Amino acid sequence: MLTEQQRDRVCVVLVRARNSSNIGAAARAMRDFGFAHLCVVNEFAPPFEAARSAVDASEVMAAARMYASVADAVADCTLVVGTTAVGERKMEHELLELSAAGERVGAVLNAAAAGEGDSARVALLFGSEKTGLSNEELSYCNWLLTIPMHQIDGQKHVSMNLGQAVAVCLYELVRAEPAGAMVEREGGLPAVPEAASSALLERITALFQQVLEATEYTRRHAANSDPAQVRRLVRRIGADAVDAPVWMGILRQILWKLGIEREH
Amino acid sequence: MLTEQQRDRVCVVLVRARNSSNIGAAARAMRDFGFAHLCVVNEFAPPFEAARSAVDASEVMAAARMYASVADAVADCTLVVGTTAVGERKMEHELLELSAAGERVGAVLNAAAAGEGDSARVALLFGSEKTGLSNEELSYCNWLLTIPMHQIDGQKHVSMNLGQAVAVCLYELVRAEPAGAMVEREGGLPAVPEAASSALLERITALFQQVLEATEYTRRHAANSDPAQVRRLVRRIGADAVDAPVWMGILRQILWKLGIEREH
Repeated sequence: MLTEQQRDRVCVVLVRARNSSNIGAAARAMRDFGFAHLCVVNEFAPPFEAARSAVDASEVMAAARMYASVADAVADCTLVVGTTAVGERKMEHELLELSAAGERVGAVLNAAAAGEGDSARVALLFGSEKTGLSNEELSYCNWLLTIPMHQIDGQKHVSMNLGQAVAVCLYELVRAEPAGAMVEREGGLPAVPEAASSALLERITALFQQVLEATEYTRRHAANSDPAQVRRLVRRIGADAVDAPVWMGILRQILWKLGIEREH
Repeated sequence: MLTEQQRDRVCVVLVRARNSSNIGAAARAMRDFGFAHLCVVNEFAPPFEAARSAVDASEVMAAARMYASVADAVADCTLVVGTTAVGERKMEHELLELSAAGERVGAVLNAAAAGEGDSARVALLFGSEKTGLSNEELSYCNWLLTIPMHQIDGQKHVSMNLGQAVAVCLYELVRAEPAGAMVEREGGLPAVPEAASSALLERITALFQQVLEATEYTRRHAANSDPAQVRRLVRRIGADAVDAPVWMGILRQILWKLGIEREH
């Protein structure tokens, strides 16, 4: 998980976006993942005003900056990464799949956080919906990344929706390490209910066994009624400290109805 | 990377989507990442015809199926995963961050590919844009996943755009393992029993509810007897295809002993 300061080193650059709702969608994805710097490169005034009303992303849109060229937009960036569909691949550039690209960008941001490369600033470039990035635009990139999409043989390659592509790339940047390497988040996830103690599970098992006997299940299905098997079944219920009393209540109620347990 | 057969085991279920362009956007993300099975759950005819013209996703949209309820949509699924924003978290469910969720779904799909769990079928549930999944809808889920979004203190939580959320989740499923972290899979994971289908779990839930009523548990503990709560309790039992008939046998035996079920 990136820190606030690390996210602050990243900017999303939309080059010749043709559709204002796509600009708004990109801004919304940025807001969702905590990135603030949106740059829009358009030779002519883009349909920008419409996008400024983009749902829920008003702060990102209000702070967006307009540039006439990619050169201007990335001028203060130390790493410029272009996005491309595999079909458009330019051999001049190193091409990484998004997961590897995310790792490499993460390394740059971590180095910056450690005090190395204090000027580090990363730009992610997205081309127009129709044509992607031109050769000239790609020439500003250090390397390229591609989102692993499904290719159907013989079908013309179609690129992703711009807002979705931005969302997927930013997700990769903030993506937590797989389980085991889970980092504590600020505020953290809500607490997981406590596991039930073995002793409590044993009491549930005993009540369960009583129910099986009282209903003649043990007589009829002797093969399933072995105590060890019942214990495993109860363990598999996976009752936590919240569920356990509910289970006990249900089992006691069954026993009461069967006339076995008087008090409950 | 998932194989064609593995992708074929996954369906995306959109519940009460309000906006046809969002349905189209979800379909497009599915097409991009190679998933074919789209289910749309709407009580009333949704703005579906409009979405059928969704750009570049015509095959996914043409094959989409309409359902009147979540129960119908997930009937043949063995693993039902709900998506939720952290703020909406229902404590009754286990909650995984998307990366960990992807790993767990991947393990199920890998076991299926290895010949274990041939009936494995995974549903990813997405709620309406405004309200997410209801308690009743969540009760069909085995566990929940959340996309790690940026929370700003004091700001009302806003959920992701539906099409972007679908794109990010599916990307996680097809995402390549990072270099170096690839685990050796030859030799396979330990054998996993086949999961019980949702339809089978529903039958267990119905029997369970009958037992609770027949024993007057529902009268005495009304707060624990809400159908959605009972469904969640049964989902947490985690019955696989081996346990499920045992549970049905036990519940039927209880009903028989209570004089409710004659034949068994």
